[in-house]
Amino acid sequence: MISTRALTKAAARVSFLTPLQRHFVSARRVGFVGLGRMGLPMARNLARTTDVIVYDPSPVACDEALASGMKVVESAQAVGASDCEVLFAMLPGCQAFDSVMEEWKDCVRENQTIVNCSTVSPSTSKKWEAAYRAKGHTVFDSPVSGGVTGAGDGTLTFMVGCESEDELAKVKPFLDLMGKRAIYCGKAGAGSATKLCNNLALATQMIGICEALRLGEAVGVDPAILSSVMGTSTAKCWSVDINNPHPVVAANMPNLPPASRDYEGGFATNLMLKDLNLALQSAQEEKVALPLTSAAKNLYHLAQLQNLGELDFGVILAFLRG
Amino acid sequence: MISTRALTKAAARVSFLTPLQRHFVSARRVGFVGLGRMGLPMARNLARTTDVIVYDPSPVACDEALASGMKVVESAQAVGASDCEVLFAMLPGCQAFDSVMEEWKDCVRENQTIVNCSTVSPSTSKKWEAAYRAKGHTVFDSPVSGGVTGAGDGTLTFMVGCESEDELAKVKPFLDLMGKRAIYCGKAGAGSATKLCNNLALATQMIGICEALRLGEAVGVDPAILSSVMGTSTAKCWSVDINNPHPVVAANMPNLPPASRDYEGGFATNLMLKDLNLALQSAQEEKVALPLTSAAKNLYHLAQLQNLGELDFGVILAFLRG
Amino acid sequence: MISTRALTKAAARVSFLTPLQRHFVSARRVGFVGLGRMGLPMARNLARTTDVIVYDPSPVACDEALASGMKVVESAQAVGASDCEVLFAMLPGCQAFDSVMEEWKDCVRENQTIVNCSTVSPSTSKKWEAAYRAKGHTVFDSPVSGGVTGAGDGTLTFMVGCESEDELAKVKPFLDLMGKRAIYCGKAGAGSATKLCNNLALATQMIGICEALRLGEAVGVDPAILSSVMGTSTAKCWSVDINNPHPVVAANMPNLPPASRDYEGGFATNLMLKDLNLALQSAQEEKVALPLTSAAKNLYHLAQLQNLGELDFGVILAFLRG
Amino acid sequence: MISTRALTKAAARVSFLTPLQRHFVSARRVGFVGLGRMGLPMARNLARTTDVIVYDPSPVACDEALASGMKVVESAQAVGASDCEVLFAMLPGCQAFDSVMEEWKDCVRENQTIVNCSTVSPSTSKKWEAAYRAKGHTVFDSPVSGGVTGAGDGTLTFMVGCESEDELAKVKPFLDLMGKRAIYCGKAGAGSATKLCNNLALATQMIGICEALRLGEAVGVDPAILSSVMGTSTAKCWSVDINNPHPVVAANMPNLPPASRDYEGGFATNLMLKDLNLALQSAQEEKVALPLTSAAKNLYHLAQLQNLGELDFGVILAFLRG
Repeated sequence: MISTRALTKAAARVSFLTPLQRHFVSARRVGFVGLGRMGLPMARNLARTTDVIVYDPSPVACDEALASGMKVVESAQAVGASDCEVLFAMLPGCQAFDSVMEEWKDCVRENQTIVNCSTVSPSTSKKWEAAYRAKGHTVFDSPVSGGVTGAGDGTLTFMVGCESEDELAKVKPFLDLMGKRAIYCGKAGAGSATKLCNNLALATQMIGICEALRLGEAVGVDPAILSSVMGTSTAKCWSVDINNPHPVVAANMPNLPPASRDYEGGFATNLMLKDLNLALQSAQEEKVALPLTSAAKNLYHLAQLQNLGELDFGVILAFLRG
Repeated sequence: MISTRALTKAAARVSFLTPLQRHFVSARRVGFVGLGRMGLPMARNLARTTDVIVYDPSPVACDEALASGMKVVESAQAVGASDCEVLFAMLPGCQAFDSVMEEWKDCVRENQTIVNCSTVSPSTSKKWEAAYRAKGHTVFDSPVSGGVTGAGDGTLTFMVGCESEDELAKVKPFLDLMGKRAIYCGKAGAGSATKLCNNLALATQMIGICEALRLGEAVGVDPAILSSVMGTSTAKCWSVDINNPHPVVAANMPNLPPASRDYEGGFATNLMLKDLNLALQSAQEEKVALPLTSAAKNLYHLAQLQNLGELDFGVILAFLRG
Repeated sequence: MISTRALTKAAARVSFLTPLQRHFVSARRVGFVGLGRMGLPMARNLARTTDVIVYDPSPVACDEALASGMKVVESAQAVGASDCEVLFAMLPGCQAFDSVMEEWKDCVRENQTIVNCSTVSPSTSKKWEAAYRAKGHTVFDSPVSGGVTGAGDGTLTFMVGCESEDELAKVKPFLDLMGKRAIYCGKAGAGSATKLCNNLALATQMIGICEALRLGEAVGVDPAILSSVMGTSTAKCWSVDINNPHPVVAANMPNLPPASRDYEGGFATNLMLKDLNLALQSAQEEKVALPLTSAAKNLYHLAQLQNLGELDFGVILAFLRG
Repeated sequence: MISTRALTKAAARVSFLTPLQRHFVSARRVGFVGLGRMGLPMARNLARTTDVIVYDPSPVACDEALASGMKVVESAQAVGASDCEVLFAMLPGCQAFDSVMEEWKDCVRENQTIVNCSTVSPSTSKKWEAAYRAKGHTVFDSPVSGGVTGAGDGTLTFMVGCESEDELAKVKPFLDLMGKRAIYCGKAGAGSATKLCNNLALATQMIGICEALRLGEAVGVDPAILSSVMGTSTAKCWSVDINNPHPVVAANMPNLPPASRDYEGGFATNLMLKDLNLALQSAQEEKVALPLTSAAKNLYHLAQLQNLGELDFGVILAFLRG
């Protein structure tokens, strides 16, 4: 369930829209396909000010959307065939996105813009953008960061690939209902690539911090001191400062990162693994060597094989302890 | 040669000492063994206010020390046998440190404190601390970060392992002449461990950023945009913000990191490799698995084999381009 | 050019067919698409006794096929639409195979059997087998080992995936014209998988032997002695016994493996990399972790980046020397 | 307990000695330090024909030696100070060997030869050989392969580093009592290096085979067929032919390798890890990059952290299954 606090935050966000923006978003309709743990709260944030037509294969998700005032239709195709000006997709991967894009290929109407918030490979983004552009349609790749919390709060960051910043400006008012930032990353595929690149760097940083803390504790260094030194020197990073994977250190941080509660919540190892697989697939397509990313991916995979996949990716520290 | 700017900075630092501190350091003598690229400027900073007795096997280094007003003696043993209250060592590795400690074993006098600024393995630090403690002497492990620039500027950070913070307080006035921070990391070996842990985390971060930038450029993302996104999100780290390894991005950063000048200067791949070898050796002693650190070490090693060892460790980006 | 020795060998092979087999193969026609370094000599071996209808996008290859008595048609589709009973494909990868299978989908005739000798992913083999089976056609995956030499000599090994050994028996007389063994590996995809599994094991073995020889030479062990010990103990493998990667050892082996001639000829690093990418892609599809294969793949990739891709994969020893 | 079958085999071995050899070994005395799972049966095989003076810190081991007719003394030093012509050491690692060599330094008598059967780093072998040579003594490095079974059966292989093959000839009659082969590998350290090199190659081969079998089973290839294909082609190796790590395949092999009995017995993952650590330490000393060996070592280490260390190293297949 979305928390009251999140509702308030998101409501507050809406109230910051200028009258013009408010008019803009309230006068239009959008479609939304994919009402999972991310998609549903995102659609809800849109629905505060805008008519939203939705579809998801799960009846439960559709019921929740209905209860939040959205219009539910019977298929992705029906969403595409509606008179929405913007169609959002928030799907679990390339295959699901491919299916929806196949379905939409012939029903999408003139002037409709597709904004794909799913994390897919850059080549998937490029492929569909090119296919739709040939028919006069616009497809944005616009994956997000911020997780389930950001989706609820309306504080996501969108990493957008599209023809130009001007294009981005057209859908920005909608993105602003769901997030706090929409960054223009470049042409088609650049949004997808940026997300994957950020996450592969993050993946290695987290394991690096876990290994540092693991060696430190074995040698007898207080993890709080070690974290503090790393956090104020050349090893400073989000994985030590904000999402510290050491349970004792995390328990004393004001933001109580997942390590403070046995790695529950946070960014699941399984999801990190999914993004790393996409990054490595993209690397293979581009004939790029990512040796450290490969090594990181294998560790997350081995941790998953030990039933740690549902836990925050900082659980690698526990995996290394055995 | 140490720059005028560095001299001024370091001089300024001295002027910030309280009268009591100034009295303290000027009334005492220290020894210093190891006048390399780090040791010589460190000793010079000490020599501004304190009598310094030095030794280095290189006659050139000894001449420079003499010219800076230090007293040069004929051996490490002679330094140890002098009436210095604190003996500093800044040596290239465990073996060199072992030799000096063997030499000093029988000549060190009562109340002399040994401060080892060399980067050595935690077990080496523990071994000598225990051996000297048995004879009533104190040995600190106190490796530094900040590089040649910090050594000249007097802005090093010391990561100190010793019995207690009170012990550290006794030598702090001397450390303050050479650096801006002295962090108490824990008992003997904790200083060495902290440095190695920080650097292994750093090693993985840098390669992670290089791989992100490599994939990004292959897919067609502007490296400046990608760096900016990573620098404001979960992949934020020193290797993207301060020491960005992409030549084009670096050239536009105010601090002009090494990537802006073909990776000249900075933290050499060879030195990173040395630290990673120490970290992995320590991990082996402690039976700790550091799989990502191993993978990172191998990449730096392979880069070294392609004659990139003298360059800043961000040169991994160039190595990955082939 | 195919050597006289190879021609004689292959001719000899034909002469070993029983009169019944000879009748069988001479009475029928086959199609062949893909006349590269492997495909052309394979088609030639078929053409000794059988009518062969071929297509390749390269006019040069088509001319050579014509000169060898084959019938050249204008497209893969024309091969598929011919009255051949068996259609062979020997293409450079999944994409090329996908295209041909798309082209053939509607033109392939009843009772035609497709034998795919290209190395593709098991899922690609399964996908097309299922699609064609739905239309009553049979598709075999039948990748080969033995390289260009085996293709010329007619001494290839076929690793075959198909419904049953009985099915295999039907095309075996044709395979016998091109190879010395046709191994039934299991249902659709099993042939592709077997080839990739064999090659990933091989990939790690070769690097293992290279690393052993590299450490040995650094410590001062005669590589011939070390190879001989490994070849008679638990490290015994093809990469030490037959394809030894040490130049000095290779120069003294009767079969003169590629290391004896600066790694020219043999199994190119690029091709090994291609197979490893397919294996890793298959592993990703199956959610299987192959950490050592990943590490091996990265090394071949890094070697490729140093312009070693055209050389035998034993060149990793040279890469490790720097 | 040593089996009757082993006793018979070893006895048979003794009976193959020529009368001259038998005279040679029966007329002399040897010392033996280190009566562990390997050392005790080795000493027993010596004791069949030769006087053996032994020491081990374990009273139980000493009792067993006494019961086998050996003379037990109170310290390694007492063994060294005895009138034995050859002193054998079979110790668990570098540290234990260093201690014994320190103890023996001053008590070893003229004409005594030290044969170190322990697996130690090449540099350890070189260091002690040089130190003892300076005093006129001879030290051989002579690690073994063949495991506990070979030690009992008297079928070990010795990998010997010493000045020359002539030197080796002098102690060969004793080695022949314990093993079936003594291979001259080169100067001091070459025996140690050969063993480590062989084992690092073996380590990668086993994981390669495990990964091949893992992918194969996921895709649906019968592991027996896959093993058979690999065993007759370029992936042929001891780890597929003799020590196949797949439980089902192993159960059908006449030699019933450890995988047939839940990986009990065989070559323990822990021991492989120990050898890999020695190999990597040697590589670090020699500044040699062994990236695949590193990766293999990390996998064995991670498996050890999952409590698989006591099992045969083929258990990596189980580890990869999760």
